[in-house]
Amino acid sequence: MAERGPEWLEWLDGGVTAPEGWRAGASYAGVRTYGEEPRYDVGLLASDRPCTVAGIFSQNAVVGAPIKFNRPRVAAGRAQAIVANSGNANTVTGERGDLDSARMASVAGVHLGVPEELVLVASTGVIGRPLPMDRIEGGIAAIEARPDGGPQFARAIMTTDTRAKSRAVRFEAGGRTYTIGGVAKGSGMVHPDMATVFCFLTTDAPAEVGWLQSTLKAAGDVSINMIDVDMDSSTSDTMLLLANGAAGGAPLDERHPAAPRFREALEAVAIALARELARDGEGARTLIEVQVEGAASLEDARRAARTVTASPLVKTMVAGRDANLGRVLMAVGRSGARVDVDRTSVWIGAYCAFERGVPTETPYETISQAMDTEEVVLRVDLGLGDGRATAWGCDLTEDYVRINADYTT
Amino acid sequence: MAERGPEWLEWLDGGVTAPEGWRAGASYAGVRTYGEEPRYDVGLLASDRPCTVAGIFSQNAVVGAPIKFNRPRVAAGRAQAIVANSGNANTVTGERGDLDSARMASVAGVHLGVPEELVLVASTGVIGRPLPMDRIEGGIAAIEARPDGGPQFARAIMTTDTRAKSRAVRFEAGGRTYTIGGVAKGSGMVHPDMATVFCFLTTDAPAEVGWLQSTLKAAGDVSINMIDVDMDSSTSDTMLLLANGAAGGAPLDERHPAAPRFREALEAVAIALARELARDGEGARTLIEVQVEGAASLEDARRAARTVTASPLVKTMVAGRDANLGRVLMAVGRSGARVDVDRTSVWIGAYCAFERGVPTETPYETISQAMDTEEVVLRVDLGLGDGRATAWGCDLTEDYVRINADYTT
Repeated sequence: MAERGPEWLEWLDGGVTAPEGWRAGASYAGVRTYGEEPRYDVGLLASDRPCTVAGIFSQNAVVGAPIKFNRPRVAAGRAQAIVANSGNANTVTGERGDLDSARMASVAGVHLGVPEELVLVASTGVIGRPLPMDRIEGGIAAIEARPDGGPQFARAIMTTDTRAKSRAVRFEAGGRTYTIGGVAKGSGMVHPDMATVFCFLTTDAPAEVGWLQSTLKAAGDVSINMIDVDMDSSTSDTMLLLANGAAGGAPLDERHPAAPRFREALEAVAIALARELARDGEGARTLIEVQVEGAASLEDARRAARTVTASPLVKTMVAGRDANLGRVLMAVGRSGARVDVDRTSVWIGAYCAFERGVPTETPYETISQAMDTEEVVLRVDLGLGDGRATAWGCDLTEDYVRINADYTT
Repeated sequence: MAERGPEWLEWLDGGVTAPEGWRAGASYAGVRTYGEEPRYDVGLLASDRPCTVAGIFSQNAVVGAPIKFNRPRVAAGRAQAIVANSGNANTVTGERGDLDSARMASVAGVHLGVPEELVLVASTGVIGRPLPMDRIEGGIAAIEARPDGGPQFARAIMTTDTRAKSRAVRFEAGGRTYTIGGVAKGSGMVHPDMATVFCFLTTDAPAEVGWLQSTLKAAGDVSINMIDVDMDSSTSDTMLLLANGAAGGAPLDERHPAAPRFREALEAVAIALARELARDGEGARTLIEVQVEGAASLEDARRAARTVTASPLVKTMVAGRDANLGRVLMAVGRSGARVDVDRTSVWIGAYCAFERGVPTETPYETISQAMDTEEVVLRVDLGLGDGRATAWGCDLTEDYVRINADYTT
């Protein structure tokens, strides 16, 4: 499928190891015991030199030990590697959990030859059970991190995801060539114990740390934070960006000539991964893209787009290929955004179903039939201002309930 | 099943026509064409004399014509009858919708012999299609409102509800006997176009209008407003209380000796109806009651209880009889309430699963098996203060998706 982004972007294979100076790998350690078959469950990602780092973490009042462990390290602005596991989130595990995160970092650091204090930790999976540290340590020891190991690492962080999610882009800016790689996992807009969102981004660009943080924040706000409404809700959600500078030149900052293109490229990678996350929602058959325009403010647009995307009614209407205009209006109405029905228009796919307060004449059947695609776009024009935002979600199917009701039993 | 409430309350049959001076009836007019068989779809409820009235309406930015019609009438404080229909919500129907609501009130007033300006209107059902006024007028004309017609009226307002919901209580206070009746419809925490919440309450107590409004508001806050999170979200949600004074005596107000008991009785009826609404959620097999205590504030307690109740993860965990403690903690954590995990305890049914930050030793299987009941109670003690609140919801089953994905197709 064609990726969205400016034409000067070249899309590459390789994910997080596509940029210069990165290596990764994975092993099966038996942490993730609940799947049908053995699958990678421990992964390592490392740069050949220290990086500047930026990070965004879950806003949930309950967070896992890894997030508590990472926060001060990211705040310090330097990191060189990530050790990750699936199968167990190391959350609500008390003091032991904190010690286990520290131990993971130190074992990974020794194995990789990276200073222990530059290793970040990420764990996803079940909650409230202690990490099987013997298995994790054995798993780390078994990994050979290699320059083509990005796709392996992508598989190691999967939980109920049905496919790995990697992207990478290359572009020229200010006379140099930069590469950005990314990997993500999620699978489930509302399944935070298994479907924590991880999005790890790597680059060979050098970057000033304050600028890197604000750039990551901006990219997160138009991508990962616009999938459903639960990104800031799980206990382990983590978005990290590590810049190792292998491409050479001066560190990117606001005034660097390459900054605008880097920002745009980072957003393109993050949006591509966000769309993959939404498309792979648990039990999902359809990607839903909600475009809101004409909102009184950017905040209103974001709120309306996210509320429509997250609405179980909208999700089931897409699952049932049911052009139920009322459900879209209902969700917009309760989003908290300023709404004047008589100025509001709604498109379902290519069809305008509601124009400035009045349902159009297009037959319900025509619109419903056109919804029978892999991707349904709902567009809402609030007719009030310039605020615009896009959010992504997926349909709610019987499979979703089956996965979530039967999971641990 | 035993109803909850003080022992001095006598529970009666008859619903909204149990109090003195009330009559009701229903007819099948063919508005509700989508069911398998003809069912009442137009209803009338009337007092033999004018009443003081209180009301609470949907906070959705998009509301139906009936709500716009009722608001000024309720604000004026007097009413005598309600005309209701299911099958069509008269929402997003433009000017024609406003005229149709007015016409319904006037036709009902003439038929009932009630001043047209004292008639309120309620419509629930599909959105965006004009009311079939000829059928509705025919339906009104066919109704004979009788003192035993409460149960008929309860059936006329059902949409996807699987059963009618009526309650009534009688009690003595300050030397007089008062009766309160109530009827509700809902069926679907998140299906606002079909599952609008209506809760209409009648009484033979006389009441001062300002006191009646604050008393209804307080009762709504601990009942209908604590079912899931969508009460204030649908476009047609309406709670009304009409007091006709047939029981005699001075109007109830803050200082009236019967006021405390009336308030308590009203809450008992409203909570009984709220629990029925939650229990009859679309596709539901299990009532979920979430009790939060020890919150830093009442607002925090309400927020936490509602968030847990509304969480699709909690709903599916109850459907699957899966004692997945992590999901409860997750929902509490993202509720916005102040949370300190190390002070938090969680009970699932009779079992403490998490005590001040640490999972207990009670086996997962033991707790899961105990969840196999018609009603699952989740209790959370935040250990921070005196705030407490209770919310109700239902499990999320594959049937829910089936109902909502296939409805209009």
